[in-house]
Amino acid sequence: MGAREVGLPDTVGADGLPDRVTIWEVGPRDGLQNESEVVPVGTKLEFLDRLADAGGTVLEATSFVHPKWVPQLADAEELLAGLVKRPGVSYPVLVPNERGLERALRAGVDHVAIFASATETFARRNLNRSLDEQFAMFEPVVSRARAEGLAVRGYVSMCFGDPWEGAVPREQVVGVGKRLLDMGCDQLSLGDTIGVATPGQVTALLAGFDGVDRLAVHFHDTYGQALANTLAAMRSGVRTIDSSAGGLGGCPYAESATGNLATEDLVWMLDGLGVEHGVDLDKLADTSAWMAERLGRPSPSRVVRALRG
Amino acid sequence: MGAREVGLPDTVGADGLPDRVTIWEVGPRDGLQNESEVVPVGTKLEFLDRLADAGGTVLEATSFVHPKWVPQLADAEELLAGLVKRPGVSYPVLVPNERGLERALRAGVDHVAIFASATETFARRNLNRSLDEQFAMFEPVVSRARAEGLAVRGYVSMCFGDPWEGAVPREQVVGVGKRLLDMGCDQLSLGDTIGVATPGQVTALLAGFDGVDRLAVHFHDTYGQALANTLAAMRSGVRTIDSSAGGLGGCPYAESATGNLATEDLVWMLDGLGVEHGVDLDKLADTSAWMAERLGRPSPSRVVRALRG
Repeated sequence: MGAREVGLPDTVGADGLPDRVTIWEVGPRDGLQNESEVVPVGTKLEFLDRLADAGGTVLEATSFVHPKWVPQLADAEELLAGLVKRPGVSYPVLVPNERGLERALRAGVDHVAIFASATETFARRNLNRSLDEQFAMFEPVVSRARAEGLAVRGYVSMCFGDPWEGAVPREQVVGVGKRLLDMGCDQLSLGDTIGVATPGQVTALLAGFDGVDRLAVHFHDTYGQALANTLAAMRSGVRTIDSSAGGLGGCPYAESATGNLATEDLVWMLDGLGVEHGVDLDKLADTSAWMAERLGRPSPSRVVRALRG
Repeated sequence: MGAREVGLPDTVGADGLPDRVTIWEVGPRDGLQNESEVVPVGTKLEFLDRLADAGGTVLEATSFVHPKWVPQLADAEELLAGLVKRPGVSYPVLVPNERGLERALRAGVDHVAIFASATETFARRNLNRSLDEQFAMFEPVVSRARAEGLAVRGYVSMCFGDPWEGAVPREQVVGVGKRLLDMGCDQLSLGDTIGVATPGQVTALLAGFDGVDRLAVHFHDTYGQALANTLAAMRSGVRTIDSSAGGLGGCPYAESATGNLATEDLVWMLDGLGVEHGVDLDKLADTSAWMAERLGRPSPSRVVRALRG
């Protein structure tokens, strides 16, 4: 019998937090993309269905990156053709470029995300573009998507540190972010791709923007800081938080980039703080335990291990 | 090459945090006590020496609990006889009762800790006493220790949740803590033994005491909340934080009680926040990697895995 079965501590809020947040679930895309063994499309569809059943309202479903780069998600068209969308649930997909957007539009998506870099080196390594050139690549993608009536999220990666460049100047991150907003992105997701940030840096970066209404945060738990950073971001008013069911995933092109914040660990904190989010922890933990079985290794989420280990 | 080698993000403080904290290192006692295979006393001594060399100033060295209950620490006398104490470093030991204190005094210790329970069930299971009866057991220990000029810490376990009773009323925890302070303990360590707390509960519990000067916190990472809770405690002014090198340990008598907060994960956050603590992260991570090798399994600390994995 775990602690949860006999009752959690009572809910106690904390000053300056939002009443409600949106959890942007990245497990099906960011979480699975690095799995070397291809997960059957039926399993992915069941994963999405279970996540929706657990109360997820934003489920990043897949990516239209070239299959050569991410073979795991080569089934994007098949996945979307088989997806039974639930009312009230959004299923954004990642599109790397115009060709990816074209595929996504043909597949009938209404919400896309682009993936930009806050640093020169990562732009060159991940996008084969300079920091500046990436905007020329994204501009037609965003304007076409907007013209088609799609919502567009802009990921900004390496916002706090970069494995090649080290510390990333905040003005540079804010500059990249503002250009994406000006371009037409309706939301930015500020990512700590290698997981090095601590709460003071989070607060300081967020303060560099004109308000946080269009900002989301995306923390990695590489150095165990993801949840403390999330708390800091919520104190700054951020109301959209990225996380991955069971803590699946990481970034294949960045060293030390292991471990997305686990949705269950986030939900545990939000439940204790009385911050509403709509996700049922038990159903979610069941889903992650089920997926961990399919992947053949235990979930890295501490909550999943404690409740279902 | 990890991120740290090319430079962390710049240090950015956060409002309302102390300038400096004391890390109370529990690895040698709390961390090792549940290891089923006995660690040689020479390895324990080297562990303590390395922790002091890394800048640790409070190293909880061992326990004088009856060897029948914790065979791993049956070598307490031998350990203390072999210990070369460093100037400026305190080596507290756990004493369960008068007999344990007697042994500790003969071994020449000058700093002890007693281990109390905030709940009835855990008092009965761990101490074979009722919640009230535990004070009768501790009273002569504390008064004798004080009379001998020793510093005395009082651990309060199960402060937020208990695996049998569920939520623990804050007044009950505060009541237990105040009785220990009144008895003569110079510090309380408030423990989330099963790791269920979230930041709002931490703030609320601390507010129940008359000031935090004599309070320390002891969080477990069972549900991934330890560092976020530590941040909340520091915001309330707490300046002594318990942690375990490499995340060693847990509590053997409580289900779901795995995972002390790893000192390295704490140090990473403190370094980023510019909160002074005196510990050298590289030396500490080396020590934990060395100990993990001796124990034959990887460190559960995320920082140790990222830097030395």
